[in-house]
Parts: sequence; structure tokens; C-alpha cells
Amino acid sequence: MMKPLILVTNDDGINAPGLQALFKAMSVIGDAYIVAPDRERSAVSHSLTLHRPLRVEEVKERVYNTNGTPTDCVAIAITKILPRKPDLVASGINRGANLGDDVTYSGTVAAAMEGTQLGAPSFAISLAGEKPFHYEVAVPFAMEVARYILDKGLPDDTLLNVNVPNRLKEALKGMRITRQGKRAYDNAIQEIYSPSGEKHFWIGGGKPTWEQGGDMDMQAVFDGYVSVTPIHLDLTNYESFEVLRKTWKSTSN
Amino acid sequence: MMKPLILVTNDDGINAPGLQALFKAMSVIGDAYIVAPDRERSAVSHSLTLHRPLRVEEVKERVYNTNGTPTDCVAIAITKILPRKPDLVASGINRGANLGDDVTYSGTVAAAMEGTQLGAPSFAISLAGEKPFHYEVAVPFAMEVARYILDKGLPDDTLLNVNVPNRLKEALKGMRITRQGKRAYDNAIQEIYSPSGEKHFWIGGGKPTWEQGGDMDMQAVFDGYVSVTPIHLDLTNYESFEVLRKTWKSTSN
Repeated sequence: MMKPLILVTNDDGINAPGLQALFKAMSVIGDAYIVAPDRERSAVSHSLTLHRPLRVEEVKERVYNTNGTPTDCVAIAITKILPRKPDLVASGINRGANLGDDVTYSGTVAAAMEGTQLGAPSFAISLAGEKPFHYEVAVPFAMEVARYILDKGLPDDTLLNVNVPNRLKEALKGMRITRQGKRAYDNAIQEIYSPSGEKHFWIGGGKPTWEQGGDMDMQAVFDGYVSVTPIHLDLTNYESFEVLRKTWKSTSN
Repeated sequence: MMKPLILVTNDDGINAPGLQALFKAMSVIGDAYIVAPDRERSAVSHSLTLHRPLRVEEVKERVYNTNGTPTDCVAIAITKILPRKPDLVASGINRGANLGDDVTYSGTVAAAMEGTQLGAPSFAISLAGEKPFHYEVAVPFAMEVARYILDKGLPDDTLLNVNVPNRLKEALKGMRITRQGKRAYDNAIQEIYSPSGEKHFWIGGGKPTWEQGGDMDMQAVFDGYVSVTPIHLDLTNYESFEVLRKTWKSTSN
């Protein structure tokens, strides 16, 4: 029987320990390839590089880096590098959480979006917490999710976003299927000055607060569970769609 | 009565004629400000710049540019530039369509996502077609959408994605409420060589094909209607959420 073909990527770059841990785990399950950014590409979201050509470097057998974004890596891997369409795309293990609204910024989740759009079942996996990161704790969950997807498949246009609490294995309580939570923004933007005295703004550094809730991704992580959220690429708000159809008075409709 | 405060931005950059057309239209409705990227930032998706400070330049009264992404512009505008939270964020008028799966790549739509996340009702507007672009054709629709939102508001975590066919006014048939369509990718990546003979890949240049369908955004545009799609920031696939809850056998749940 042919082994499944698995593409591994991330947004922390090719040298990130989380990528290496995920690659090792996926190599147990199938024929794994890495195609990942040559440097950190966090918060690049679903960016696609259209304005310049991209370089691909073969580091060793089945391991490539590119000077593009995670989305670029997946597009080039599936179209130009892999011997056939992968059976699975695994993105991570990210250094830090991808929960709630933050999934729309995440390069890690974007790579899984690109895999999904190109027809390969995909998941993103992140360690939720702060340094030091215990990547080995996330590995068995990466394998469980990978085996589930290879066995059962995923619904159309849907990926799995997995967040593992960065705790010791003994402190993990299991897995929960969750929905995307909501972050209450604290709008942290620092004002700083250049050496010549020009004011600049630097985004970041705030402590986000979260809406609480039993079903929500961050609540699961807070409670010590691995959060698994099915993420849909169809962003239509169908409830609003019906309401707008009835209420919008326009020239025609 | 206080005039509504409206933030105008885009991803084609501060000098784009579509931005100027939208600014002019929004200035009729309220107190409009521009905070936009200093250059083209297409396909940057919901990227947030965390790795460096950002410069803001006041070009003239109420008109600013930054060296960041559309998402950066909205975050900085709302947090640091505008006198209060805007009543509306208007992003566009984009040079080219933002339909179907492409909304996840779009900087234009991402700016409206950021506005929505920061609590301001938002819409994105794009001209669907090729050069020459008739921005003046989109202007009355931008005004209709803006007035609708200011009057009725929008559901939580929901923005409107508007695409206007780039046709003469007489050829437009009206407006349709639509759902996000699906693009069939053609995986266009060109192989090119550097002067030193090194192979590179350049993403782009393909002709996408679309799934047909009465409700879909691209079908509306194809039929000569302005497409208005409600886009939800909660990406949870609730159908899958229920199915996974029932079928996933894990250590606990």
C-alpha cells in the first residue's frame, strides 16, 4: 500500500524546532516533505507574493525552503515540488497560540487554508503559551489529528485548527472540539521615536482578553484541553445573507 | 447633528484613483479621513506588521499614509489618528475583483476585517474587471452601501464585500445579495530563470474559472449586477463542529 504523502510547513521558518518536531512525527505516518519559509513569517496571514519571483532551495532530500510566505510555500510545493497532490498538509507546530480572531492574521493557519483551497485536507497546530515551548507535548496530538484526517477526510473547504496548551503532558486533560472564540482587543500600539526624533508606531505588546465560553477555543486551552476547531473557507454569514435579501431595498433584487 | 466619521483606506496605495473616488464620495456623507498605505499592498491579506515600527505621514488635513499594510493602517487610524472610533470604515475602490476564495488573500477585504474587529461597521468595495477602470460607476453603490450601514448597522463580526462590474453605468442591472463563491484554481506558477541561471517561480498569470451558481458573488457580477456579500469573521464550520463532536473518539470529550 502506498504511504500517504504529507506536506509539512510553518510560519516560524525552516529552522524552527516546532517544524522539525512536526516533520519527525509526520514521517512516522507517511512520506513527509518540508517546504517552509527561509525565515520567520509570522502574522503574514494569507499573503501571496505576486510582485517578484521566488527562490526555492533544496536543503536536503525532501526538505526545501523558499523566500516567500507560508501560502507561497504551499502553492509552490503542491504545484511544482511534490511528486503528486499531498494526502495531507500539516502546518506548525507554531510557537504561540492561534486562537479566536487571530486565525485571520496567522500564517500558520493560512498555510492550511492554501492546502485546503488546492484540494488537500489540511490542519494547523500551535502551542498555546509562552517560552519555554514543549513541542514534544504537541506531537501525539499532531499524530492523532493527522491519522483522523487521513482515515475520515474532512468536509469541503474545511481545515482543522489545533491548539495545544503549552503544559507538561500530565497536565493535559484531552481534546475538545471547539468553535472560534472572540478576542477583546486592547489596541496595543506603542509610540516610539526614531534617532532623528520622528514619531513611529509599533504594533504589539498588549495582553488580549478573551470572551469566556464553554465551546470556545481559548476556553478549552485555558481549561487544559487541546482545542480542535473546524474552520470554513466560505466566510459568508448565511444568517445575514437571508436578512439582507429581505430588507435591502435597491434598484432591483 | 454630528456628521458620521468615516475612515477610508485601500490596498492599492494612497495615490490610487479608486481611493480618491471613494474619499470624495464618503466626504459627501460624513467627515472622511484617509489612512492608506504609501504604496501598493495587494494580496497582503490580513497581515499585521509586528517586526518593525511604522511611520505615519500627514499628507494634508485628514489624509495620512503609512509604510504598513492596509490592516496596519486601520489599526493605527482607529487607535492613534482619528478623533474617535469611526462610524464606518470604507475600503477601496479596489482595482480588480475580490470574489470567492480570493477574499482570504485580499488586502482590501482585510482592512474591512480589521475595522470590524475593532468595532467599526465596515465594507470593502472593488471594481470587477480589467483596465480601463470606471471608478465613477462604483461611486453611487459605495454611497448606497455606506448609507445603508450608517442607517441600519451590521450584524456582529460581519462586514459587506461589494463588487461592482467594471461596465458602463447603463449596463449595470442593480444589486444582488450574494454568497461567497468558489474559484477553481488553475495553479498558475511560472518557472523563470535569473540572470545567473537560477530557477525561480513566479506566482500568477492564470485565468481562474468559477463554479457557476445563482447565489454566488461571481455569478452576480457576470450577470451585470453589483454583488454584496455579508462576510463573517467567525470562521467556525458549525456543521462540522456538530459532526466532529459526535464522531471524534479521543481520550476525553
